[in-house]
Amino acid sequence: MNETIELMMKHRSVRKFKPDPISEEQLATIVAAGQMASSSSSVQAYTVIAVTDLTLKSKLAELAGNQAYVNECPVFLVWCADLFRLKDAAKQHVPDKETYADSTENFMVATIDVALASQNAALAAESLGYGIVYIGGLRTRIEEVSELLGLPEGVYPVYGMCIGVADQETGIRPRLPLDAVLHQNQYNAEQTLEGMARYDETTVAYMNERTQGANKTPWSVSMAKRLTEPVRLQMKPFLEGKGFMKR
Amino acid sequence: MNETIELMMKHRSVRKFKPDPISEEQLATIVAAGQMASSSSSVQAYTVIAVTDLTLKSKLAELAGNQAYVNECPVFLVWCADLFRLKDAAKQHVPDKETYADSTENFMVATIDVALASQNAALAAESLGYGIVYIGGLRTRIEEVSELLGLPEGVYPVYGMCIGVADQETGIRPRLPLDAVLHQNQYNAEQTLEGMARYDETTVAYMNERTQGANKTPWSVSMAKRLTEPVRLQMKPFLEGKGFMKR
Repeated sequence: MNETIELMMKHRSVRKFKPDPISEEQLATIVAAGQMASSSSSVQAYTVIAVTDLTLKSKLAELAGNQAYVNECPVFLVWCADLFRLKDAAKQHVPDKETYADSTENFMVATIDVALASQNAALAAESLGYGIVYIGGLRTRIEEVSELLGLPEGVYPVYGMCIGVADQETGIRPRLPLDAVLHQNQYNAEQTLEGMARYDETTVAYMNERTQGANKTPWSVSMAKRLTEPVRLQMKPFLEGKGFMKR
Repeated sequence: MNETIELMMKHRSVRKFKPDPISEEQLATIVAAGQMASSSSSVQAYTVIAVTDLTLKSKLAELAGNQAYVNECPVFLVWCADLFRLKDAAKQHVPDKETYADSTENFMVATIDVALASQNAALAAESLGYGIVYIGGLRTRIEEVSELLGLPEGVYPVYGMCIGVADQETGIRPRLPLDAVLHQNQYNAEQTLEGMARYDETTVAYMNERTQGANKTPWSVSMAKRLTEPVRLQMKPFLEGKGFMKR
């Protein structure tokens, strides 16, 4: 064990923040640490928009499904997949050539790039004593969010991230048993399902304690519910409209 | 600054490894640290396959484009997006209901989950003194890779990752200027393009020094070339065939 792994092991999402601001210097350190994550062929296909304007932040909180903590956190980061720079580079240097900015591969590269950078930034923020939470809800009204932030073609908001000083103590949520997610040499369906069954027991006990008996839903029941809900089906037409994954 | 941020700031990809093995305990620590990353609604939609079998590893090295380091590293991790567990949960609990495992949203959730977990794992490995490199080349012959690892429907290999003791000293590659990727409240196209122009100068100087003058290609020229190459256009039909992003 070391400081970095210890930091990871105590991660929990924070959904209540003190109003204490984050200095420009600290934000720069956090994002610069994000930039040091690996990037496919160094494309660095992301941009992060730091939202501190109160009116804009409150509008985004509403669009993300009225999540109060988006409003309360001092800085709300919007992590965007960004092929705008690459497209401009192609326009500058090979204006007559067809680009593949609209390929599924390049959509994946940009989306993965964002995630690697943002996870570095999340840990960097936590290492400085802040709490964070990812806001996937920012995709629910993704078209309005994109318009509000002035995102050009080739750029889309992957998720938001609240950063700030935590104003709550929350427990660490147990993860799937290691052997459910770590396989040796081959995908092991039996092992993963067996691990999932054990995890159901863990989550029932955890939820029972956390909610004083009000909620004892096993993980697999929550997952079954989640997977059968028609969540964000507008994603495909939206992304295609923004020039992504057309082929 | 602290130990975690310092670790991030000195990241570079390692492409030459000593044969020293990684103990089972350390691999467990690395993947468990990966699991602590945030996950959308706790779906944990990933599985990582640790490849140590020599024949299998050498076959994967070949499929990834004859990358010798895949063969040389003691452990090659294949990070897979995995909706198999969720699909099984739905089958168990709501067998008559339609699932949305094939939505673009759930494809994104799984892909992002992998990336967040793998970046934690990468840093955890680095904090233990190992070097890593992501292998996006694993997607080039994705169908064969999936077959070789026995991946079921709802599971696909996002990328590989070599882990091991570094057998080379490489420089730290400069990133885009901070203001090119960090914007305030609104997307700033002018600022991002201006930053990109400055970065071209940085990369020319860096490449010039690194290659003793043999390569002085500005970043934007490399990006223009990359974006106009038809890379992995089989991704869309392959993913649809695996049950992903059909709608």
